[in-house]
Amino acid sequence: MSSDISIIGLGLMGSALAGALLKAGHRVTVWNRSAAKAEPLAAQGAVVAATAAEAVGASPLVVVCVLDYAATRQSLEGADLTGRVVLNLTNGRPAEAREMSAWVTGQGGDYLDGGIMAVPQMIGAPGALVLYSGSRPAFERYEDTLAVLAEPRYLGADPGLAPLYDLAMLTGMYGQFAGFLSAAALIASEKRSVAEFTESLLVPWLHAMAAITPPMGAQIDAGDHATDVSNLEVNRVALTTLDAAFRDQGVKFDLLAPLKAVMERRVARGHGYEDMSGLAEELR
Amino acid sequence: MSSDISIIGLGLMGSALAGALLKAGHRVTVWNRSAAKAEPLAAQGAVVAATAAEAVGASPLVVVCVLDYAATRQSLEGADLTGRVVLNLTNGRPAEAREMSAWVTGQGGDYLDGGIMAVPQMIGAPGALVLYSGSRPAFERYEDTLAVLAEPRYLGADPGLAPLYDLAMLTGMYGQFAGFLSAAALIASEKRSVAEFTESLLVPWLHAMAAITPPMGAQIDAGDHATDVSNLEVNRVALTTLDAAFRDQGVKFDLLAPLKAVMERRVARGHGYEDMSGLAEELR
Repeated sequence: MSSDISIIGLGLMGSALAGALLKAGHRVTVWNRSAAKAEPLAAQGAVVAATAAEAVGASPLVVVCVLDYAATRQSLEGADLTGRVVLNLTNGRPAEAREMSAWVTGQGGDYLDGGIMAVPQMIGAPGALVLYSGSRPAFERYEDTLAVLAEPRYLGADPGLAPLYDLAMLTGMYGQFAGFLSAAALIASEKRSVAEFTESLLVPWLHAMAAITPPMGAQIDAGDHATDVSNLEVNRVALTTLDAAFRDQGVKFDLLAPLKAVMERRVARGHGYEDMSGLAEELR
Repeated sequence: MSSDISIIGLGLMGSALAGALLKAGHRVTVWNRSAAKAEPLAAQGAVVAATAAEAVGASPLVVVCVLDYAATRQSLEGADLTGRVVLNLTNGRPAEAREMSAWVTGQGGDYLDGGIMAVPQMIGAPGALVLYSGSRPAFERYEDTLAVLAEPRYLGADPGLAPLYDLAMLTGMYGQFAGFLSAAALIASEKRSVAEFTESLLVPWLHAMAAITPPMGAQIDAGDHATDVSNLEVNRVALTTLDAAFRDQGVKFDLLAPLKAVMERRVARGHGYEDMSGLAEELR
């Protein structure tokens, strides 16, 4: 084998990964469906493979970062995976990762799945995180190499865990964005500065309120939603006021309407005296 | 007048406000519809008024913290407001605050509206914030007194601003909670610890992602949603994957479904190449 690591897929993320590994002094082979994207990396010292199978054959660690799991499978099909580690950094679902792991293992390879919690610009810089799951020996063998890309976090042998946690973190993020966007529309309805509101009031407030979520998580784990502070009924009333205020201001309440609905449902079922954490049970 | 400050309404919050002011050495008169709630404060030195009008008459600063604006109005009706400052800390909407301000001013009083960004336990402790709007002279006269309760932030002469910003902050918070609850349900679907996920992964990630919102706010202010990073189409694809993963895991996607719908609508209208900030325009 002529290289340390092969990278299959040179979109913005794959190129960032290859660039960071080259910069750290690794011998890197790259392949991309359209060859032009390999040129900047060739200029940085990467070997450009003629086919995906050739790229797989070049290294003991094969990193795949393509559009979806179907494209991952296609790029590995027909290549010799025996004794190699396949690290799939393609976005997907837990079920897809488990299926891919079974297939790679069946081909004699070792499988790691990864979830990149960063944009390409953050690769190789502080603050980037990559979640890993699957073969622990494979993770331990390459942990130091992977640390060049981002802080590595190993979640367990079940290959579905990295996509599970990745998707859960995205879920939290999109909820936060939905709240921000609705808040922004409310502030904009009075022609006030959204940037100033967000910077000076909303962000510190979101930080403070995020601190409440780990204890709520513990309540969800325990299935015990007792509270003596702000119960579901109090929150239901607050969301009713919010809904009315959005109407007053001519702003759509759409993004928070389902939270109000699920609160009303749970209060109607007799859980009004409990903590908001109990709403997680309504999502099952 | 026999006191410095009168407090009308002794729920958990009103009692916390009165307690903090007493502790700071102010002479405080209190009144509550059901008299029993005044007893603990009487024990701390508060004067207990027999009627709301008597409480109003006792002090130059009258703080009202009751269920809603109708109850605020009822408690002030018939009292002599001439030369007094009414600070209404009751939860409500901008339109209600403006109406209340007009009425109090018409009675010869000065009006301040306030939004308490804290739970009662936080009053008088670091981290609590109260937003104020309305009469600037009234705010400046009592700023130091009010600083005993929480960090005071004055937003402007329009009395509707404190409730507007209060509701916008709650909106952001509820979006964050909706994201957390959905993420928690996803993690719980695989019987993993929600508390550990939240503490070690989600909270730091939410902090990092909150940092993106002020620049998004600036884009909303400018009405310019150009981006060269993660555009709306990329986010639409991510939400489609999320939706499928929720289905796989048997978890309801309800709380994020409207965000997906509004993204699809905006992409269909030709804004797929723009930043997610543009979604605020879809809420108008």
